[in-house]
Amino acid sequence: MKVAITSSNTQKFLKHTDFTQVEIASKSVVSLLSNTKIEKYEIDGLIVSSNSVEPYLSNIIAEMVGLAPKFSTKVENLCNSGTSAILLAYSLIYSRICKAVLVIGVEKQNSPGNKLVWDITRGLFDMPVHWASLFASNHFRKYGTNMEDLAAISFKNHKYANNNPNAFFFDRTFTFSEILNAELISRPLKKYDCCYPCEGASSILLVSEELANRFEVPIWIKGISQNNQGASFASITDSLDGILSTRIAAKEAFRQADLRPSDIDIAELHDAFTILEIMAYEDVGFVNKGNGRDFIRDPSVITNIRGGLIGCGHPIGATGIDQTNEITLQLQGLAKERQVDGLSTGLVHNMAAAGTSTTIIILQN
Amino acid sequence: MKVAITSSNTQKFLKHTDFTQVEIASKSVVSLLSNTKIEKYEIDGLIVSSNSVEPYLSNIIAEMVGLAPKFSTKVENLCNSGTSAILLAYSLIYSRICKAVLVIGVEKQNSPGNKLVWDITRGLFDMPVHWASLFASNHFRKYGTNMEDLAAISFKNHKYANNNPNAFFFDRTFTFSEILNAELISRPLKKYDCCYPCEGASSILLVSEELANRFEVPIWIKGISQNNQGASFASITDSLDGILSTRIAAKEAFRQADLRPSDIDIAELHDAFTILEIMAYEDVGFVNKGNGRDFIRDPSVITNIRGGLIGCGHPIGATGIDQTNEITLQLQGLAKERQVDGLSTGLVHNMAAAGTSTTIIILQN
Repeated sequence: MKVAITSSNTQKFLKHTDFTQVEIASKSVVSLLSNTKIEKYEIDGLIVSSNSVEPYLSNIIAEMVGLAPKFSTKVENLCNSGTSAILLAYSLIYSRICKAVLVIGVEKQNSPGNKLVWDITRGLFDMPVHWASLFASNHFRKYGTNMEDLAAISFKNHKYANNNPNAFFFDRTFTFSEILNAELISRPLKKYDCCYPCEGASSILLVSEELANRFEVPIWIKGISQNNQGASFASITDSLDGILSTRIAAKEAFRQADLRPSDIDIAELHDAFTILEIMAYEDVGFVNKGNGRDFIRDPSVITNIRGGLIGCGHPIGATGIDQTNEITLQLQGLAKERQVDGLSTGLVHNMAAAGTSTTIIILQN
Repeated sequence: MKVAITSSNTQKFLKHTDFTQVEIASKSVVSLLSNTKIEKYEIDGLIVSSNSVEPYLSNIIAEMVGLAPKFSTKVENLCNSGTSAILLAYSLIYSRICKAVLVIGVEKQNSPGNKLVWDITRGLFDMPVHWASLFASNHFRKYGTNMEDLAAISFKNHKYANNNPNAFFFDRTFTFSEILNAELISRPLKKYDCCYPCEGASSILLVSEELANRFEVPIWIKGISQNNQGASFASITDSLDGILSTRIAAKEAFRQADLRPSDIDIAELHDAFTILEIMAYEDVGFVNKGNGRDFIRDPSVITNIRGGLIGCGHPIGATGIDQTNEITLQLQGLAKERQVDGLSTGLVHNMAAAGTSTTIIILQN
């Protein structure tokens, strides 16, 4: 059974609006449904990805938008929630339990998830920026990465965000020196090395091969894999050099797709912090370990043209969905201002909590 | 691909202990792992079912018990969480993404979920007992069901619980008159017509056909189906006579299994309130609509021998798992004091929020 992505929608990422998460999620679903060839009654699966604490969220959204799916649930897996939900949707179709699964990622800014209180191995350094700063310091020391390299990532992603009307920083331009000279948050990471928590909703429709035939350019999932290495920073990181879960998940996804990193034309990479994008170049396999900084100057893959988490903002449960939507739109040729020509293969990389969990998705048109 | 249940564990349901949910969940997993023929490294899927608000719970539990699964997430679907997680585990194996998926249901008493604040169609009558009392009043009026019928359900389930050491009411015996004359909660439902919120953990292992061959009595999932009809009581109940989601899910599960209700030997039914067990007799199809009360006196199926939610208590995210564990143990011949002889086919019925969502699982040895 082949599984395709056919339709997607993202609502503009914002901050402090008066809308509830049910409202912004419903708006995204209604927009998606008004622009697809699948009827409401054909949608037999619904998965909501969110870190919110509101119970029964998937059934509430189902009722709001008029769906009565065969299967419905909410999933939560921190920043990896959206891509976990997509993997489950893929599984439900591949196993022929469902034929059309709608996945909705939604978050308000007050969702928990910024801090993993459980992980006391971090001591008082318990914010995500703390582990990111350890990764960055190690990369500086060992591979000669420097502040200019980090700023180059932030500058690129902010610039790309200026072409994405849904991005939080769509309207705001940054100079390289503004990024490089921003205030220090946790040495060596500065303000614009960090992504911006915000609210947002993003939805995506996965369908069976039979239903995909209704569409001109269905996007096929050629590989999808996840790996989990626990929850705490101290116990899973045997080395600060790279993200083990990313290496394992990427290897498996490439094996499924029978492709290599050099086959990827475009990728969305999890850049909650600039250093993570550089490490992702290496761990996904675009360059060898330690050469991530060279890739910035001479990239063989277009990365984070959506704007990344840094340019778009990071509505936790929605991020993995919007990353996948971007690759889908690019491969469909529907990415408007951002469209890149001649694409055939794209990759999504999403992760959670210091890289303890990673999902990789490989898509083709 | 056939999918089997091979191993299960439930920790005693208690109230107000000092243990965290991670601790009670881990205890259940460690007990299960010490008594199975699947190695830790072979467990490539982990799904945690819980209504708790703690983020990243599945990866935290994975780390506590020493698992590094390929796939891991938490799901939440109110009282239907546990059986939603089992359906996803089934899907992950059926689609060959995973070979062995461990599902853990866990709840502390302070989890949200007792009240669906979103459902303002209930007005001030916003507790679950309120909609249950509407169902009961209708059944009284229309089909002549009475207080003695309800008390008979509660009496039976409490008596069964006296054979289940994991049940919250294991040590407590009730007389029929004590149940019948208990204080009124919401007319006509009295105190012991209602289940008891408590804490607990229950885990279950689903495996592929290949791994199932290691076990003497693997239990096969012959049918598994869910149906969702929204979230609010007012908009989904076109009639108070029965639960639409149960009728649809049961019909589909029987179709998958190529069986009929008369083929079922033993069933675990969702009895958050006594009236729901009577309605389940009808909606699952053991008797015609309105004849549920006759079934109490002359049952063709053994129901809730575990003690039901009424005798066991109701740790929300764990309940669906423990219901499935009970049918598994009975079909394996491992139910000890409670063992019924000569069983070949069992059914699990679990639902959420006024019956807006139901899951049905049909098992055979």
